[in-house]
Amino acid sequence: MRKVFQAELHQVGEQLIEISRLVAEAMEKANQSFVNADIELAQEVIAADARIDFLQNDLDERAIEILALQGPVASDLRMIVGALRMSASLERMGDLARHVAQLARMRYPANVSPESLRPTFAELAENDIAIARKLTELLDTRNLELARDINRHNDRINELHAGIFKAIAAPDFPGNAPTAVDVSLASRYFERFADHGVSVARKVTYLVTGEWAPNGASH
Amino acid sequence: MRKVFQAELHQVGEQLIEISRLVAEAMEKANQSFVNADIELAQEVIAADARIDFLQNDLDERAIEILALQGPVASDLRMIVGALRMSASLERMGDLARHVAQLARMRYPANVSPESLRPTFAELAENDIAIARKLTELLDTRNLELARDINRHNDRINELHAGIFKAIAAPDFPGNAPTAVDVSLASRYFERFADHGVSVARKVTYLVTGEWAPNGASH
Repeated sequence: MRKVFQAELHQVGEQLIEISRLVAEAMEKANQSFVNADIELAQEVIAADARIDFLQNDLDERAIEILALQGPVASDLRMIVGALRMSASLERMGDLARHVAQLARMRYPANVSPESLRPTFAELAENDIAIARKLTELLDTRNLELARDINRHNDRINELHAGIFKAIAAPDFPGNAPTAVDVSLASRYFERFADHGVSVARKVTYLVTGEWAPNGASH
Repeated sequence: MRKVFQAELHQVGEQLIEISRLVAEAMEKANQSFVNADIELAQEVIAADARIDFLQNDLDERAIEILALQGPVASDLRMIVGALRMSASLERMGDLARHVAQLARMRYPANVSPESLRPTFAELAENDIAIARKLTELLDTRNLELARDINRHNDRINELHAGIFKAIAAPDFPGNAPTAVDVSLASRYFERFADHGVSVARKVTYLVTGEWAPNGASH
């Protein structure tokens, strides 16, 4: 019985890693569709999000089944509850990658971002992709150095996000009102993606160390 | 033992209702601060959000304790897991009310919305507040008629939200780029608030009927 239980817990952990891997891939492709105004790639990201949603639901059902049949306690219980929460954050990260792709699709064949902000968006995306990849590795290895890296990427994203809003407010902003809106929404999607990544990393850290900093990343 | 367990479950339910009540109050006040450019009220909403965050953490700890000590199964287990998820959505609704208040504070003494869009924002807020109030009542009474009402309010919000984006894109939009960004963000906060409300209502419906429509409201 104990052995079956451990195998089931392991499977939940593997499924989290799989979802995280798909989320990283989604953001990579969403960014390419955003940068290159590539509508086919955007469609692909939008369609692929259903798979992430399916895997999240499946993981949640598994987790609830384990709770029902095994009645786990202590660290196993925390791990299962943590998995339920992490899967919700990862699913949301998938949604945000999809939103980036949807913006690219909506503006096709134009580019969402004006020329002058493209380097900033490139750096935003780079940091998001790094977060998603490191998250996948963190879930796999539980090497907390990766959680610290993720926080640093998020700090940089917050700076870049603030910079975008400053650029929009500047009198020389090279776009009309709809462009400003697209740019601000895109920036917010990249920033929220990172927030959820930080939130998952915090949960892993908590599962490893037992130390919890409530709500530190939800603002 | 069984009696203690039922009392604990009841307490979790009561705490959800309490959080939902605070969320409704937060959105009411956030909207007033937004409409009247009332910085003191905005500050109040921003400060009060910490209470919602605290109650969510407290509820989650209680729920996990019940899982650990009571090992609930079947509908009791679904209720506890449902409470964990609903508390996360309610906490997020509190954040979104806070974001509306933060926009009001940031633009003070100016008004966030141009004159022409104020009726639309008034209706957005009205529907959000109705959702939050009906959610509180739904959590209390489990009268599923309220869940249907909430869906109808959300449909209206989606129309209004789309209307705001159309207004920003129109050549006669009476604002510069930063105004367009503020307006679009505010509209998105109101719209996301409603989405989370629908998501909580769906979970209550599921707990009552056992029927689940996965991801219907997360897009």
